[in-house]
Amino acid sequence: MNYFPNVPTIPYEGPQSTTPFAFKYYDPDRVVHGKPMKDHLKFAMSYWHTLCAGGSDPFGRDTMARDYGQEDPMARAKAKADAAFEFMQKLSIPYFCFHDADIAPEGKDFAETRKNFWEIVEYLEGKMKETGIKLLWGTANCFNHPRYMHGAGTSCNADSFAFAAAQIKNAIDATIRLGGQGYVFWGGREGYETLLNTNMELELDNMARLMHMAVDYARSKGFTGDFYIEPKPKEPTKHQYDFDTATAMNFLRKYGLEKDFKMNIEANHATLAGHTFQHELHTAAINGAFGSIDANQGDSMLGWDTDQFPTDVYSTTLCMREVIKAGGFTNGGLNFDAKVRRSSFTYDDIALAYIAGMDSFALGLLKAYEIEEDGRIDEFVRNRYRSYEEGIGKEIKEGRATLEQLEAYTLEHGEAVMESGRQEYLESVLNSILFRGV
Amino acid sequence: MNYFPNVPTIPYEGPQSTTPFAFKYYDPDRVVHGKPMKDHLKFAMSYWHTLCAGGSDPFGRDTMARDYGQEDPMARAKAKADAAFEFMQKLSIPYFCFHDADIAPEGKDFAETRKNFWEIVEYLEGKMKETGIKLLWGTANCFNHPRYMHGAGTSCNADSFAFAAAQIKNAIDATIRLGGQGYVFWGGREGYETLLNTNMELELDNMARLMHMAVDYARSKGFTGDFYIEPKPKEPTKHQYDFDTATAMNFLRKYGLEKDFKMNIEANHATLAGHTFQHELHTAAINGAFGSIDANQGDSMLGWDTDQFPTDVYSTTLCMREVIKAGGFTNGGLNFDAKVRRSSFTYDDIALAYIAGMDSFALGLLKAYEIEEDGRIDEFVRNRYRSYEEGIGKEIKEGRATLEQLEAYTLEHGEAVMESGRQEYLESVLNSILFRGV
Amino acid sequence: MNYFPNVPTIPYEGPQSTTPFAFKYYDPDRVVHGKPMKDHLKFAMSYWHTLCAGGSDPFGRDTMARDYGQEDPMARAKAKADAAFEFMQKLSIPYFCFHDADIAPEGKDFAETRKNFWEIVEYLEGKMKETGIKLLWGTANCFNHPRYMHGAGTSCNADSFAFAAAQIKNAIDATIRLGGQGYVFWGGREGYETLLNTNMELELDNMARLMHMAVDYARSKGFTGDFYIEPKPKEPTKHQYDFDTATAMNFLRKYGLEKDFKMNIEANHATLAGHTFQHELHTAAINGAFGSIDANQGDSMLGWDTDQFPTDVYSTTLCMREVIKAGGFTNGGLNFDAKVRRSSFTYDDIALAYIAGMDSFALGLLKAYEIEEDGRIDEFVRNRYRSYEEGIGKEIKEGRATLEQLEAYTLEHGEAVMESGRQEYLESVLNSILFRGV
Amino acid sequence: MNYFPNVPTIPYEGPQSTTPFAFKYYDPDRVVHGKPMKDHLKFAMSYWHTLCAGGSDPFGRDTMARDYGQEDPMARAKAKADAAFEFMQKLSIPYFCFHDADIAPEGKDFAETRKNFWEIVEYLEGKMKETGIKLLWGTANCFNHPRYMHGAGTSCNADSFAFAAAQIKNAIDATIRLGGQGYVFWGGREGYETLLNTNMELELDNMARLMHMAVDYARSKGFTGDFYIEPKPKEPTKHQYDFDTATAMNFLRKYGLEKDFKMNIEANHATLAGHTFQHELHTAAINGAFGSIDANQGDSMLGWDTDQFPTDVYSTTLCMREVIKAGGFTNGGLNFDAKVRRSSFTYDDIALAYIAGMDSFALGLLKAYEIEEDGRIDEFVRNRYRSYEEGIGKEIKEGRATLEQLEAYTLEHGEAVMESGRQEYLESVLNSILFRGV
Repeated sequence: MNYFPNVPTIPYEGPQSTTPFAFKYYDPDRVVHGKPMKDHLKFAMSYWHTLCAGGSDPFGRDTMARDYGQEDPMARAKAKADAAFEFMQKLSIPYFCFHDADIAPEGKDFAETRKNFWEIVEYLEGKMKETGIKLLWGTANCFNHPRYMHGAGTSCNADSFAFAAAQIKNAIDATIRLGGQGYVFWGGREGYETLLNTNMELELDNMARLMHMAVDYARSKGFTGDFYIEPKPKEPTKHQYDFDTATAMNFLRKYGLEKDFKMNIEANHATLAGHTFQHELHTAAINGAFGSIDANQGDSMLGWDTDQFPTDVYSTTLCMREVIKAGGFTNGGLNFDAKVRRSSFTYDDIALAYIAGMDSFALGLLKAYEIEEDGRIDEFVRNRYRSYEEGIGKEIKEGRATLEQLEAYTLEHGEAVMESGRQEYLESVLNSILFRGV
Repeated sequence: MNYFPNVPTIPYEGPQSTTPFAFKYYDPDRVVHGKPMKDHLKFAMSYWHTLCAGGSDPFGRDTMARDYGQEDPMARAKAKADAAFEFMQKLSIPYFCFHDADIAPEGKDFAETRKNFWEIVEYLEGKMKETGIKLLWGTANCFNHPRYMHGAGTSCNADSFAFAAAQIKNAIDATIRLGGQGYVFWGGREGYETLLNTNMELELDNMARLMHMAVDYARSKGFTGDFYIEPKPKEPTKHQYDFDTATAMNFLRKYGLEKDFKMNIEANHATLAGHTFQHELHTAAINGAFGSIDANQGDSMLGWDTDQFPTDVYSTTLCMREVIKAGGFTNGGLNFDAKVRRSSFTYDDIALAYIAGMDSFALGLLKAYEIEEDGRIDEFVRNRYRSYEEGIGKEIKEGRATLEQLEAYTLEHGEAVMESGRQEYLESVLNSILFRGV
Repeated sequence: MNYFPNVPTIPYEGPQSTTPFAFKYYDPDRVVHGKPMKDHLKFAMSYWHTLCAGGSDPFGRDTMARDYGQEDPMARAKAKADAAFEFMQKLSIPYFCFHDADIAPEGKDFAETRKNFWEIVEYLEGKMKETGIKLLWGTANCFNHPRYMHGAGTSCNADSFAFAAAQIKNAIDATIRLGGQGYVFWGGREGYETLLNTNMELELDNMARLMHMAVDYARSKGFTGDFYIEPKPKEPTKHQYDFDTATAMNFLRKYGLEKDFKMNIEANHATLAGHTFQHELHTAAINGAFGSIDANQGDSMLGWDTDQFPTDVYSTTLCMREVIKAGGFTNGGLNFDAKVRRSSFTYDDIALAYIAGMDSFALGLLKAYEIEEDGRIDEFVRNRYRSYEEGIGKEIKEGRATLEQLEAYTLEHGEAVMESGRQEYLESVLNSILFRGV
Repeated sequence: MNYFPNVPTIPYEGPQSTTPFAFKYYDPDRVVHGKPMKDHLKFAMSYWHTLCAGGSDPFGRDTMARDYGQEDPMARAKAKADAAFEFMQKLSIPYFCFHDADIAPEGKDFAETRKNFWEIVEYLEGKMKETGIKLLWGTANCFNHPRYMHGAGTSCNADSFAFAAAQIKNAIDATIRLGGQGYVFWGGREGYETLLNTNMELELDNMARLMHMAVDYARSKGFTGDFYIEPKPKEPTKHQYDFDTATAMNFLRKYGLEKDFKMNIEANHATLAGHTFQHELHTAAINGAFGSIDANQGDSMLGWDTDQFPTDVYSTTLCMREVIKAGGFTNGGLNFDAKVRRSSFTYDDIALAYIAGMDSFALGLLKAYEIEEDGRIDEFVRNRYRSYEEGIGKEIKEGRATLEQLEAYTLEHGEAVMESGRQEYLESVLNSILFRGV
């Protein structure tokens, strides 16, 4: 254990601590409403951002060392795995998530790539047994390679589609082997650059075919976990087909996939689509598709996916409120699909960033339960809709009312008597709960 | 005929004309691909913007006179109708669209409002017979009145819901009486301001109940036309439930309404949702929901619904290309949901603005057919997807491929051979066709 | 005192209070760093939103009663003033701000309008003496009336310009008479709708001429306070000339107005321009133009000026940090240019909204000083730039370095040694301070 | 000449041509208003996008071959230069622009980097003599290397500042040697990621110091051309200091740099800042800073710099209208700071994209002059402001009016009589001219 030499095993020191390498809110074994914090939050490390990404952006090269002291690609992949598990142990992170391409180097052809992949899968399996760390979900990277420049499942090129299918088969196999309970489809380049050259209907039909193949295959191999679509509206393509949760749900319903798929909601993707994080979580929940979460945050002034570590406690609290209302995670969890800023280039920064993010969600969890216990907000909402619990409202809610009947009612009863929505008051209640300390 | 005293019956003078009050491209009876222009375009006048809106905005009062020389509300409503038909006749506009509240004044209670409404419906019926002008679609204004501050079909207040139902019943009855083949639900305030006070699931369930009531009622009265949802992402509420076409389709599928509803796509609503106008039209088409169009345009630098008259010929051309590909309008048409700028406050401006918009769509129609005849773009697209017409691609497309088979294929065939998407070239082809004159 | 019958004089009850009509953080006379809270914050009530605006929006009419029980316009204006002072007294708000048009009704011509205006100015003067409440700043509404459809100082119509000048003269006179130490230019319609019809250079030259006239006039009448530009990027016009602070500063420098003008920064205008509130405040400060604040907040998902009551404590804290760093307010203060949501339509809501906003800024004040006392963030910044305090950095900072010298230095010293920017850590420090209670 | 084997010397074939490798509008020697097209347009090739960029984006690796058949870095640099000149000759592009880092490989230290650089500068000099192709402007890449992670002129690290100065000195020397008449400062990372760690005032002071050094040095070496700031609002940093033209002008005025600097306006940067391309050009012109242009276009639905080839003829026409009104280019020109889409990965695409862009601007030039000749738009504007040519308007414009005088005038003359702004009509006039063919 020496890839993060300055980083100790992070202790919980409480809200008053000023130790950089300590948790202020995340106390993994503290029992909150009958369950340890760690089981409420189910934190996962993202292999790609945490171990692979080097800080390059469209205007600058890498700033971070990512060679783990090894020249040979396979030796580097193992060292990277060692670093990953050192990191998760030091941070008390119980899960991880990965793309096939994150963990093992590409070979000269698919056969060699596959061989490399499985050698590292086996290596990870050993590390998992050693440490007790688990896989939250797996996926295949079908967007980086030039063969996917026109998409993978939505490529105009059937050979690209086939290649993606081959990757996905192996990624599903590895997910099953490593005990993962989720498999994610993030539509990396499943979208279009211009409608001038696109047959959108065929592309979407093909995407659905690929997903049906994946479900059929995985179920045949005994996979009982969830498939996830991860919505994103744009970037890298001009228009990504899985724009947001509602769009993904329409796709799933159209193609009969809604039984097997849930949503993996990412905060920054939500905001790029013009929605709040909470909105997307709530939309998934009421469509029966609350699944897993990619925890990060965007910058409301910027139009691209900044994947920042989540530190906005308003947002983490409202997120955890949705998680609690949805009954908590089953197969899903909170995966930090977040990367340190390019100028936070040291290994220490990675740990400091995870601490910042994990504390923000731990505090959010505590505050979400405080809101529930406080009761003022929930009671306000309940009361606000009380007119549907009796009389004409009940008729409406129970599906018995007709237009004629409602016209007659209106002619008889006259004008509706309005009550305030009290938004400002409710925001002040939220502030009172958030800022009174824990 | 004297509400637009400077406006003559607008003649067609051709592209070289510099007469302000003349069409340069719109030649109603010119036959294009076997059908008169007017039947391709099915232009409609929006009653609200054209006759009612006075130019006020959140920072300024009305700039336009809208009293039609009458003090008495009912006399004014009739004068307004006279002005409407004078305008449509002078502009050769064959259809109109209206909200209940546009045509007749509110009374002291619903009974009086209803009475006023039906008196004017009858008056309009007479004008329609006189002129041959038809109704494209009708709707009810369930967003302006304070009783709808929390929504109508999604109100927390059952009495507001009931009132909306009463309005909708009458608007449907009037639509049927006037021979309209469409009825629109624009979710004016069907959305939320803050999730802190909202039961989104109940609100959406109720909205679906209202739509089912409307369908049941209208079908029982012999209505065979289309119902439309008009998507809009935000404004006036923070989040409008019918965010975009995909969102509306998910709603329709969830609640079993997709057989009766199509989309009424508005250009400015599309762009506010982060989509191009063409994208929304195309999405509706491939979801079997291409219906009608609210023709206008937004300003890509502004974040609200500017409802400008459509003059971007790129946009009108790509729109008409979608209309042609969808087989043309059946029950729908092109309704100018557009208003003159607040500082274009004269009656002349309204006519000049319609001329600008109608010419832009007429030119778009001609250019869309030229693109089809030119064939380069369609041929490029056909060729681009040719790999799905044979071999492994055909297997995929016909639903016979499996992940295992595609892995075996990839192991055997190796890397995909890529071809360029040629976006820049296709854009230059489009320009060549657009700018070569007609 | 009976316009807000349910609203008591608001007491301070502390952070644990659940009384709706009580302050949780704002304790006016509590001394913080040697000065009472009320003098740090200098809260002002905006006459327009608080007393005049009725909740209409582009899709709906007023929801709020604003007649104050009076039919006669002048009687209503006085009742409104009574309500205003009742409200300020109950809320312990020491200042107010107004437009000419807010306080008195328009007459049949300018002479009558002016007469009405001065009658109410005198009435306000009496109320101010009675209550000790002061005027923060005054302004003229040169955007609502149709005569300003093309702008006021930037109108194409010289008579509109003249009318604006006449209004401004009286508003300045009233500001002086009522002891205001600020006069604001918010460029309501000073901008353009389309460059196709605009002479931007002439318009800007004229705007500068108007401002010079105003300065000359006010100084000649003994006004020693500040003039303010209030930047806003768009709305109502497509492009507002005072886009943001930097744009306004360029204008002031170009026309030699930078000595007399400072900025009145509005949070929601900042975010519409693509900046954070803090950014705009800081930009004003380093340009020597920190002046006054219009306190509100926007919705990062919406593209128009929502003018919500400010309840985001991250934002209020970072704002107060800038205020403290700038040495506190001199002539300026915190004016609530905020309105209740259309569906928060009761008089109670107005009080609840002010409480929410005032508490958010009071908490922000406390937290801003805690950040200063904590010292970690300031120390980090100081240390980060230490290389400019000696050696080559000092040469650069003191203006002695040349390109040749720096090339020689680089050839000799080689590569720069980088240190992390530690953004994630600093965000966690901020959270630690914000959420530990007060 | 064989790096673009399928690309012939591009002939002019006219608007009806369907030859992909032919100009439809750009006819370099055609005389338009007394000057050949090529001198009106002064097209330049951007070395970076055209020869260096490989199509990578944040989610995918390069798709384009950029090794020019050479392994050795210096041999590759020369082959790249050969390719560059082959391309410019085939496309009849008379100018190019470059960053130091585009043309020559980085060495093991700055001495070697400098040596490499000058060897290639000499090589380019030879190619320029051979071909008659000229340098439009030069610049230094002070953003890609990790040493610039915190900025260059605005770095917190004085050694980074010094390194940038060393690069800039050499880039200026090379620009002078190669006869360039422009030197550009694009503030690649001159901005901040978070105000939490930033001393913005010091950073801006330092930036000004660097620019003063550059001016002093270049003038001492006989440089008589223009310095340019290239505004951009964001990306890569969260906030770029040169947000837009007005912001850059404020900076220049504050630090006394406005005599030596003009603007290099990029279309996509304009739109990212919330402005139209035309707005930024016009703002530069009325601030005496119209300089040069980076020709490209963004996607109004996307929030990052897409740098697409410019094919929107509305935009190119309005751009050329501003160029004509500004008297044409002096030292500046039209540099294609544009890149082919990642999926347009062949060498043919580069040529096809330049043809698309060059034709769009050539057509824009022709149409801009047609608008001028047509006269309707200019005449409308002239007439619109006629009230400032006599009476009270003239008093205002000539600086003689006072507030008192304007109040007296208003009392006497009464209400302003308004005229329409006629936006819709003017847009239809524009369309008439654009779409009637050439």
